[in-house]
Amino acid sequence: MALIVQKFGGSSVEDAEGVKRVAKRIVDTRRAGNDVVCVVSAMGDTTDELLDLATEVVPTLPTGGREMDMLLTAGERISMALLAMAIKSLGADALSFTGSQAGMLTDARHGAAKIVSVTPGRVAEAVERGQIAIVQGFAGFNKVTGDITTLGRGGSDTTAVALAAALNADVCEIYTDVDGVFTADPRIVPLARKIDLVTSEEMLELASAGAKVLHIRSVEYARRHGVTLHVRSSFTSATGTTVVQNREETDVEEAIITGVASDLSEAKITVAGVPDVPGKAASIFKVVAKAQGNVDMIVQNVSTIETGRTDISFTLPKADARQVIEALESEKAELAFESIRHDDQIGKIALVGGGMRTNVGVSATLFEALSNAGINLEMISTSEIRISVVTRADQVADAVKVIHSAFGLDNEEAAVVHAGTGR
Amino acid sequence: MALIVQKFGGSSVEDAEGVKRVAKRIVDTRRAGNDVVCVVSAMGDTTDELLDLATEVVPTLPTGGREMDMLLTAGERISMALLAMAIKSLGADALSFTGSQAGMLTDARHGAAKIVSVTPGRVAEAVERGQIAIVQGFAGFNKVTGDITTLGRGGSDTTAVALAAALNADVCEIYTDVDGVFTADPRIVPLARKIDLVTSEEMLELASAGAKVLHIRSVEYARRHGVTLHVRSSFTSATGTTVVQNREETDVEEAIITGVASDLSEAKITVAGVPDVPGKAASIFKVVAKAQGNVDMIVQNVSTIETGRTDISFTLPKADARQVIEALESEKAELAFESIRHDDQIGKIALVGGGMRTNVGVSATLFEALSNAGINLEMISTSEIRISVVTRADQVADAVKVIHSAFGLDNEEAAVVHAGTGR
Repeated sequence: MALIVQKFGGSSVEDAEGVKRVAKRIVDTRRAGNDVVCVVSAMGDTTDELLDLATEVVPTLPTGGREMDMLLTAGERISMALLAMAIKSLGADALSFTGSQAGMLTDARHGAAKIVSVTPGRVAEAVERGQIAIVQGFAGFNKVTGDITTLGRGGSDTTAVALAAALNADVCEIYTDVDGVFTADPRIVPLARKIDLVTSEEMLELASAGAKVLHIRSVEYARRHGVTLHVRSSFTSATGTTVVQNREETDVEEAIITGVASDLSEAKITVAGVPDVPGKAASIFKVVAKAQGNVDMIVQNVSTIETGRTDISFTLPKADARQVIEALESEKAELAFESIRHDDQIGKIALVGGGMRTNVGVSATLFEALSNAGINLEMISTSEIRISVVTRADQVADAVKVIHSAFGLDNEEAAVVHAGTGR
Repeated sequence: MALIVQKFGGSSVEDAEGVKRVAKRIVDTRRAGNDVVCVVSAMGDTTDELLDLATEVVPTLPTGGREMDMLLTAGERISMALLAMAIKSLGADALSFTGSQAGMLTDARHGAAKIVSVTPGRVAEAVERGQIAIVQGFAGFNKVTGDITTLGRGGSDTTAVALAAALNADVCEIYTDVDGVFTADPRIVPLARKIDLVTSEEMLELASAGAKVLHIRSVEYARRHGVTLHVRSSFTSATGTTVVQNREETDVEEAIITGVASDLSEAKITVAGVPDVPGKAASIFKVVAKAQGNVDMIVQNVSTIETGRTDISFTLPKADARQVIEALESEKAELAFESIRHDDQIGKIALVGGGMRTNVGVSATLFEALSNAGINLEMISTSEIRISVVTRADQVADAVKVIHSAFGLDNEEAAVVHAGTGR
């Protein structure tokens, strides 16, 4: 008998019909002879509605904070109770558990709590009794303060993966409104194919590069604890994408290129005329880090001999740009740079594939394809299994298409795309 | 410095504006130099909306039950978090607590839990730190099962009174959408007056007789623990009705009649032709009790010498009538009665006043007033401070009016009536 953890996002339980559909799927899994633990997000727009309500009550919303966690977790509480009722009405036995009852112990960082330990004793007991356990996604509990916390973005995915690890589950199924992970965003590349198997290493690179189906955090947690993920649609019974730790465990041959991800959420900051002396770059990034700038790509130009100065460019989330620029300007005298340029019209494209390690010529194919399409590269950065490039924002869609095609990823027919994203 | 517990019902926090208005009132109380603990119900229609949602998900709603408690407490969680945010945005410090965090420990009877002990250590600490504590109304926690419970009808009032008792508060203010307790329902008697002071004994009689402003349970709890209640409107700053344990503690002179309550929610069952032998009535009411019939008034006729049989009539909530009749019918042979009559077109009127103890002639005035108005009495029952009568349902409004007038309770001008009731 397998133990399956199933996570259903907000779009899967959008309304009463969604809750009933999900309940049926859970009961089917149980009746097929599996032990089932479910993690559920707040229904559809509940979180947004609660935030709207809060906006009506206070002039400026507190970011994070104890009361915000108290408020938002009401959403998951509603969906988990309804789901338990729906399962029971189908004749199976279910029991819902809050984050606290499920032993999701976290630190006290409200709105972005980190898991400290997972002790799902009550969940395990319920499963042992033959019950389906429903666990509140997103919510945690801090033992020191006795307060309810939330795990922040991607919280419910993390709840599911953490439970799967603690319960030693056979697989953690992440149900969503798309059929799985695709070779590219099907809204950009209609010929994108669903990926059947991907390593967590590749998945991490894809997620970091903008693929939104899985949150980096949950993939990292799964990787660290050896949890097998299965990303699939809650609207169909089709197999989705399996995320494994090692491709060697499977019979599936490694592809050179797994997928192409793109991301329009970053801006580029260029610190121009930096004295090319040892330690200068370090000083700059110390200031950036102190201003909470989440730096992604970095490129340093060769300095000109005449001036002995160089330019340093880096990308970071658009939302971080302002505070980083202010911090750098305030240290201008100390850092001795000449000027700062800010560009929020950039886009990032990343080509990911474990097969890159053993295949030469990947970058040559990439650069040729982009060059033929008249797309200029502004920054390039690589890892063992990824090549990322920065282009103009309005060229990203074209770039993704030509790359997808150049590496033979195009499908024979266009995929069906569902809308929406879960929390 | 006084410690005031304030309870706000669903109609007081109907919407965002209501939450803001309540927050301002709480902060004003705090700034006037008091320590404040607040208990809040779910906002306006939240509970009904959650029940509607559950009705969409399952064919028949579970009554009570663990998951229903999990679902419904989400409502109070939303309102308490929003209220804490609103208070903070006014510059005061607030902290919200769930029933569990506030130490509202109950038995495990989901949907109708009884308080086992109240250990509001965290609430007291918050107050000591100068914070305003917001406590989730209606919600409790069972330590044995580790599950969330709810206190059932009047739950938030009971939460407030129990906290006031445990914290030894100076007063427990129950905010509602009416100005206080009235000498009669202002919708029936426009000239009804607000009662300034009432003893908990009188209040219990009024509540049992149909006055809906306070729930019997919370009045009983207050009486048992010596908590002074103040029922008042959250829409005005006017003083409401104070419920004290002993009138002797105050300077207010005892009125002969405090108020007139009426109730259309009961039915009358008559068991006719019962053998007039010792123990027969006891046997009948044993059957009624076993069928969960909540008997209110009982009248036994004098038996006729010819037959040696008598009729026994009693009133009980309309909803209980069916099961009680079925139970009696099934024991007909054993009980040896002749027939059962069921009448759901009755109304009950109760005249309550501590001064009845020392004043003769109250019942004479009552009967004369009703007789003059052509209203026939079907049943009469009395306690030390109450006279209850049963009439035809369609005569109740007239009866209340003439009684109210006969005892000089009429005000000089009509009261303003607000609509709605809280949980």
